[in-house]
Amino acid sequence: MKNICLSSLMPKIKGMEIGTAEAGIKKSGCVDMLLVRFTPSTSVAGVFTQSSIVSETVNWSKKIIKKGLAKALIVNSGNANCCTGEDGKIAIYKTTEEIAYNLGCKPDEIVVASTGVIGAKLPYERIVKKIPECISQDKTLEDAARAIMTTDTKPKFSHKYTHIGGVPITITGITKGAGMAAPNMATILTYIFTDAKIPSPILQEIFSKEIKKTLNCMTVDSDTSTNDMAVIFATGKAPKHPEVTSSSSSLIKPFCNSLRDLLEDLTKKLVEDAEGATKFITINVVGAKNAKSAFVAAKSIAESPLVKTAIYGSDPNWGRIIMAVGKSQVAVNQDKLALKIGETQILKNGEIVKGYDEHTSTAPYMKQDKIEIEVNLGFPEKSSNKATVWTSDLSPEYISINADYRS
Amino acid sequence: MKNICLSSLMPKIKGMEIGTAEAGIKKSGCVDMLLVRFTPSTSVAGVFTQSSIVSETVNWSKKIIKKGLAKALIVNSGNANCCTGEDGKIAIYKTTEEIAYNLGCKPDEIVVASTGVIGAKLPYERIVKKIPECISQDKTLEDAARAIMTTDTKPKFSHKYTHIGGVPITITGITKGAGMAAPNMATILTYIFTDAKIPSPILQEIFSKEIKKTLNCMTVDSDTSTNDMAVIFATGKAPKHPEVTSSSSSLIKPFCNSLRDLLEDLTKKLVEDAEGATKFITINVVGAKNAKSAFVAAKSIAESPLVKTAIYGSDPNWGRIIMAVGKSQVAVNQDKLALKIGETQILKNGEIVKGYDEHTSTAPYMKQDKIEIEVNLGFPEKSSNKATVWTSDLSPEYISINADYRS
Repeated sequence: MKNICLSSLMPKIKGMEIGTAEAGIKKSGCVDMLLVRFTPSTSVAGVFTQSSIVSETVNWSKKIIKKGLAKALIVNSGNANCCTGEDGKIAIYKTTEEIAYNLGCKPDEIVVASTGVIGAKLPYERIVKKIPECISQDKTLEDAARAIMTTDTKPKFSHKYTHIGGVPITITGITKGAGMAAPNMATILTYIFTDAKIPSPILQEIFSKEIKKTLNCMTVDSDTSTNDMAVIFATGKAPKHPEVTSSSSSLIKPFCNSLRDLLEDLTKKLVEDAEGATKFITINVVGAKNAKSAFVAAKSIAESPLVKTAIYGSDPNWGRIIMAVGKSQVAVNQDKLALKIGETQILKNGEIVKGYDEHTSTAPYMKQDKIEIEVNLGFPEKSSNKATVWTSDLSPEYISINADYRS
Repeated sequence: MKNICLSSLMPKIKGMEIGTAEAGIKKSGCVDMLLVRFTPSTSVAGVFTQSSIVSETVNWSKKIIKKGLAKALIVNSGNANCCTGEDGKIAIYKTTEEIAYNLGCKPDEIVVASTGVIGAKLPYERIVKKIPECISQDKTLEDAARAIMTTDTKPKFSHKYTHIGGVPITITGITKGAGMAAPNMATILTYIFTDAKIPSPILQEIFSKEIKKTLNCMTVDSDTSTNDMAVIFATGKAPKHPEVTSSSSSLIKPFCNSLRDLLEDLTKKLVEDAEGATKFITINVVGAKNAKSAFVAAKSIAESPLVKTAIYGSDPNWGRIIMAVGKSQVAVNQDKLALKIGETQILKNGEIVKGYDEHTSTAPYMKQDKIEIEVNLGFPEKSSNKATVWTSDLSPEYISINADYRS
């Protein structure tokens, strides 16, 4: 089924309502607050940044998710509430107390997230004031996606239809992030919603596995946020479907595939809208010693400033790709090393292919806005020793966005 | 003693002569070839790139250095002779054979290096043709530094006077590198020359130790070359000094200190001339769990595109420094975390210092061209749990240099 992403056609997940507001956290006065309410017994699972310095919201939400149930999600954009000490904790207490009072639930049923400038005190009173307004609304997924944006140039959302034992299930999701974007076992801010009924421990297993193959395989600038989180909510309000009792049962397979497709959609939207991006780059590494070294090599290519600037300049300077593999220090069988850009084989058995002429092959290819690179590290190819990473190029625009982000 | 670095005042090391030529390897037709001849029994030591893909010159020179004696050093700039397969090996054989024939030595007494574009065939015939010309010359250290330049905007060389047991000793050195510059247990291309008499195993120990504290502590863009090498030659032609029998004896201490100062000079020259650099940044990390995590955190800050672009923009967006520490995943005692930019304490005990006002302190400071950052990771401070890393900012100029390096 083709998924058309016009917001008027976006499906609504039963068991949740969306509210957004202009709380005045962002200087620019755009929508900067999202409050999602969930039906009782909505199960929840999530993954978080692996940074050794984290926002208070990450510590808070980790605890909520361990309990497995959520009644609300509150997100503000424009301020990360990180390195804010006691003030940061107070902001969370006050906000969740107010939401709990309004919804008739407990503060520890509320997932909290913040994104924006690190180290600035969060003016939580402005958020608290807007809670009643948010609670009176039932907005669209696109509105939700818009409320969590920072340097993103467009809201990012997607949906998939799937089934569990033949019963129709819907999954929707939103994400944000355009810089400081190199998730590590978590990501940016990503929220997934489904009407399936899946107990939270199983939901967690499924979610962690699919995140690894999708959001964790993108990098904009190698910089990992202190506030990254990806959380999935399952309201259980779809028509009654066979009980899901294991993350590995064949019953849940179509759901997992659709979840992965949805996460891959959102991941690609993040890369397409990366700060200053002019090209979408797919890096495939095959023939590695193992899956981990394939991923490390692919990420090293994706994060190399020299590879990224060459691609920005449409320069088929492929030696830099080789450099980036080497600097990652993964095992390489140099005599069997091979490289393809697009459909053109450049390097084979560790040396340049005879007759390779960049002027007639890679030079015109590099001018495209979608670039595909494949490196074979020279060990026998298997399905278990390859990896794909998505990234963007490095342009002067990235620098001008980030040389003065706060003004 | 103050070391003035005007080339006319540069000391000459007894036991070596320098020749350079325009071999036509660089498109631009500048000097691109260096040949240094050494007196018999010149001892040699070196460190090399840790990249898992290396130039044939690295493999070759590693073998030479293991034997401990060198008669010549040949370097070309403009072509890296990397990923050139059999052709690359032939280029080395032919060049060293010709030098050996002219000097009356063996090919395996010649250290070989190349720097420039990866993957292009090295037109070694042009180098071979210029060998007699080089051998007839006795040029300056500045000429040598100029011959190995690629995107460097100026030749980099330095010297120190020291002593061994009261006998005067001179050390000189040259280096190059402005991008693809994040040495790892080796560096860029760096050549050090001294008239001291030090057996190669001891020279190797001293050199490896001092490189770790100097050249390995700089990063321009996190990209590590396939061709990095730093080599020291000791001609033994100084007046007779007490015999050096151990790398840890107090006899050799002044020499080690001067060598470290010289390497630090050269390292700073590399950072000052980094591609597109507008600022020189010193990052000090103290109070880490151990020396390694201090270094990892400092390097993570130095390599973060967001930190580098903020500094380029003179924006005291210190949250990004914190982000870069966190993403490195080193142990952090977040409740004791502290941060200083210049003399201004911004963060203490994990939160913003009361009364911190960036407009009167860090904002004007960031406009300077030398920026100093100190992060305290919150563990008890010792001399053994800190590190310093030097780096440059990330400017649009870096991108324009690298978006089209080869044209």
